[in-house]
Amino acid sequence: MTARPALARRALGEFLGTGLLVTVVVGSGIAAQRLSADTGLRLLENSIATAFGLAVLILLLGPVSGAHFNPVVSLMDAVLGRRDHTGLPGRDLAVYMAVQVLGAIAGAVLANAMFSVPTVISATQRATPGTLLGEVVATAGLVLLIAGLSRACATLPQIAAAVGAYIGSAYWFTSSTSFANPAVTIGRIFTDTFAGIAPASVLPYLAAQLVGAAIGIALTLLLFPTTSTTTVPAVALVPSDMEEAS
Amino acid sequence: MTARPALARRALGEFLGTGLLVTVVVGSGIAAQRLSADTGLRLLENSIATAFGLAVLILLLGPVSGAHFNPVVSLMDAVLGRRDHTGLPGRDLAVYMAVQVLGAIAGAVLANAMFSVPTVISATQRATPGTLLGEVVATAGLVLLIAGLSRACATLPQIAAAVGAYIGSAYWFTSSTSFANPAVTIGRIFTDTFAGIAPASVLPYLAAQLVGAAIGIALTLLLFPTTSTTTVPAVALVPSDMEEAS
Amino acid sequence: MTARPALARRALGEFLGTGLLVTVVVGSGIAAQRLSADTGLRLLENSIATAFGLAVLILLLGPVSGAHFNPVVSLMDAVLGRRDHTGLPGRDLAVYMAVQVLGAIAGAVLANAMFSVPTVISATQRATPGTLLGEVVATAGLVLLIAGLSRACATLPQIAAAVGAYIGSAYWFTSSTSFANPAVTIGRIFTDTFAGIAPASVLPYLAAQLVGAAIGIALTLLLFPTTSTTTVPAVALVPSDMEEAS
Amino acid sequence: MTARPALARRALGEFLGTGLLVTVVVGSGIAAQRLSADTGLRLLENSIATAFGLAVLILLLGPVSGAHFNPVVSLMDAVLGRRDHTGLPGRDLAVYMAVQVLGAIAGAVLANAMFSVPTVISATQRATPGTLLGEVVATAGLVLLIAGLSRACATLPQIAAAVGAYIGSAYWFTSSTSFANPAVTIGRIFTDTFAGIAPASVLPYLAAQLVGAAIGIALTLLLFPTTSTTTVPAVALVPSDMEEAS
Repeated sequence: MTARPALARRALGEFLGTGLLVTVVVGSGIAAQRLSADTGLRLLENSIATAFGLAVLILLLGPVSGAHFNPVVSLMDAVLGRRDHTGLPGRDLAVYMAVQVLGAIAGAVLANAMFSVPTVISATQRATPGTLLGEVVATAGLVLLIAGLSRACATLPQIAAAVGAYIGSAYWFTSSTSFANPAVTIGRIFTDTFAGIAPASVLPYLAAQLVGAAIGIALTLLLFPTTSTTTVPAVALVPSDMEEAS
Repeated sequence: MTARPALARRALGEFLGTGLLVTVVVGSGIAAQRLSADTGLRLLENSIATAFGLAVLILLLGPVSGAHFNPVVSLMDAVLGRRDHTGLPGRDLAVYMAVQVLGAIAGAVLANAMFSVPTVISATQRATPGTLLGEVVATAGLVLLIAGLSRACATLPQIAAAVGAYIGSAYWFTSSTSFANPAVTIGRIFTDTFAGIAPASVLPYLAAQLVGAAIGIALTLLLFPTTSTTTVPAVALVPSDMEEAS
Repeated sequence: MTARPALARRALGEFLGTGLLVTVVVGSGIAAQRLSADTGLRLLENSIATAFGLAVLILLLGPVSGAHFNPVVSLMDAVLGRRDHTGLPGRDLAVYMAVQVLGAIAGAVLANAMFSVPTVISATQRATPGTLLGEVVATAGLVLLIAGLSRACATLPQIAAAVGAYIGSAYWFTSSTSFANPAVTIGRIFTDTFAGIAPASVLPYLAAQLVGAAIGIALTLLLFPTTSTTTVPAVALVPSDMEEAS
Repeated sequence: MTARPALARRALGEFLGTGLLVTVVVGSGIAAQRLSADTGLRLLENSIATAFGLAVLILLLGPVSGAHFNPVVSLMDAVLGRRDHTGLPGRDLAVYMAVQVLGAIAGAVLANAMFSVPTVISATQRATPGTLLGEVVATAGLVLLIAGLSRACATLPQIAAAVGAYIGSAYWFTSSTSFANPAVTIGRIFTDTFAGIAPASVLPYLAAQLVGAAIGIALTLLLFPTTSTTTVPAVALVPSDMEEAS
């Protein structure tokens, strides 16, 4: 019975976190578009602002809601935590996904309002075979990163910094600029600016993200089979032979 | 009786920290304006220098004065710490705010002197409905960040890095380039360069910052109701059920 | 007997890690080339994406395989760990090197596919006396960094951040843009884009990297003679006199 | 008697560290000058490479020599540590300063060689009233930062990151691009490229750095009067009243 207030608080954390993530992505995209002429420079500004902002949001809201901000991360959490009952239960999963999508839309509207841009639907077509492969890679990497670090018992500040740095890098090494997040993808429909995405590209992007998430979960099971036998060693070099001898 | 020297030392820390923060903001703005042609590139240079410099100042002066450097942060500290008597007492709050403003002005003068620029009043009008909304968002986020991390028992190096990264990001995702600090806003009157602000825009900016601070405090009370029940977990994923069952 | 599955898992970690490292290098190079006009700006985008991506890969896969991703790092590990039997044994060393090279090629192919670029051999000649000296310096520094931090008992997150930052810097301070990795050098043959290298330049680069690795090992033995007598002190300033008096 | 080998090893650490620091500064300056057209973009590339490289060098060589790489840092260490006999003794101080200067020159020569640039004396005049004030500010800040963090018992990785970030910021907020280091200043005579300094500007720069160091030491004594009463608290906000009541 005392669980409901806690879920409400966690839902507020996910709503706020996903919303501010989209505000960061869309807002910094608008600023970059207005202030810089070179497209690459715009993306550099956009990607650095997003890397910094995402890391901060995870660090801040991790203790509140777990800082998923992403339906495929919540899904992964539910799937990988099912066996030992540590995963998100079904009701919570549904709530998380709903508030993530609502937050993402609200975040785009807020960014538009700050920059006095009307909230209209994006006309930016993004889906091509290359960018869809990019989304598969970006999402697989993100899911593997979060699940792997969690299974290796990384701390929240480490995970926050790593996820921020990953997205900052994936803006560049994927051809899709790494959406990797169904809620953020839907939110980015609602701005016809640098970071927008036309509705016709959204379903292909979501499908690619689901495929990527499945690959990420499979890689996690291969590389980090259990949480107990794989721990972060003090030194990066070769893991001890004890691991092999067990 | 032994308290007064300590307050003097803390006041020196706040004066120096707020001053050097403005020196960083104004000085790097002048350098960027002189050396780069693209406005976005100037802001990138300005924002990276500020993010790095602010994080360093908080890490260095946190043990001396708490490294507020910002009247709304001192105010938040006094308000949120009132109940359990850990907040800044009224006399200290007044001293903090006074030296923050004096330091900010001195910091602008120092930056002007280094770059051989006369100290004159800025002519840059900044207040529009969009930028004022930007200041509300920027300040609410800053106050929530510092208060939330403190309540979640984050360490000083984590807070320093997070606040630096937040401001580096908020330069871009807000339409106002994120002043978010009444003392710094007043200090930036005293330079007619990239980072300056005309006096006519200052009162609206301060009002927006106060509104943002109130929102940030309210969000803190909702998301981090007490310091004891919310701690940073080792892993970012879903918080344990124990929290709910209590 | 139970060692073989563990070696297979470690080999998968090295394959994936080296592969994704090349995907990051090549993919971000293609994006930068397409989006920016200024060559230095392209390299800045490329180097920031690589620094962030490499640090993340080391943090993630360190617990799995040690996160070498580089034949000279595996070689150094085998050589320096020979005396106390903590180094990579000969069979594992061969497996590591093989999967690193295969992964690097696969990573280049994946980057090409994401950006819809044909996988053809690079035509970019890179070997000059200056760039070969650059590779010697870059590789010596990398080997000294990893070996020295390990001997000083640095933690995995510290090593990950330091190696990422080192490569981000070495892109700029060496004249070769710091390949410093035989597997990555071979992988970068298979893309005729910003990060490619023509086959004729590869052998000279590999030779320079081996010379650099030898210098890095020698410097490690001079500066960090044993793991036990050199530990990371709490404070950076002068090491205690106890070290001298022993 | 066993002290001499240790001093030799520490001297090698200082020689190598100061040398590679200058290699980073000069080498990345040459690369930036060749590859980018905008002067501010060149400085951004130069400053990011230096911030990353310096932080890595301090982390790596801190356990070996204390990672001073700077005569005014060694001097500060000797002065502030005199009373409790933890500072650098006179003989060591002389050795440190000598190898720092020799290393700095060697580092410039190495950078020139990598980029196939002749080692000639710089013709870049830098001394003006504004830049000399910039050097005073830059050096005072650097000395205060290192001494203050040490007295507050910061860890080596924290100091390394903070000093790197400080220099990355000070490139921008000072008018002199923050040399802040007599050895590095002398080394930068020996390259007629982006980072060079003409001999006629060197003595004024060194004088300004000494003034800055004295101010930094004075501020340290005011803000961090003893090492024992000022420790890094877990939370950045207001220091506890216990400090005052003592």
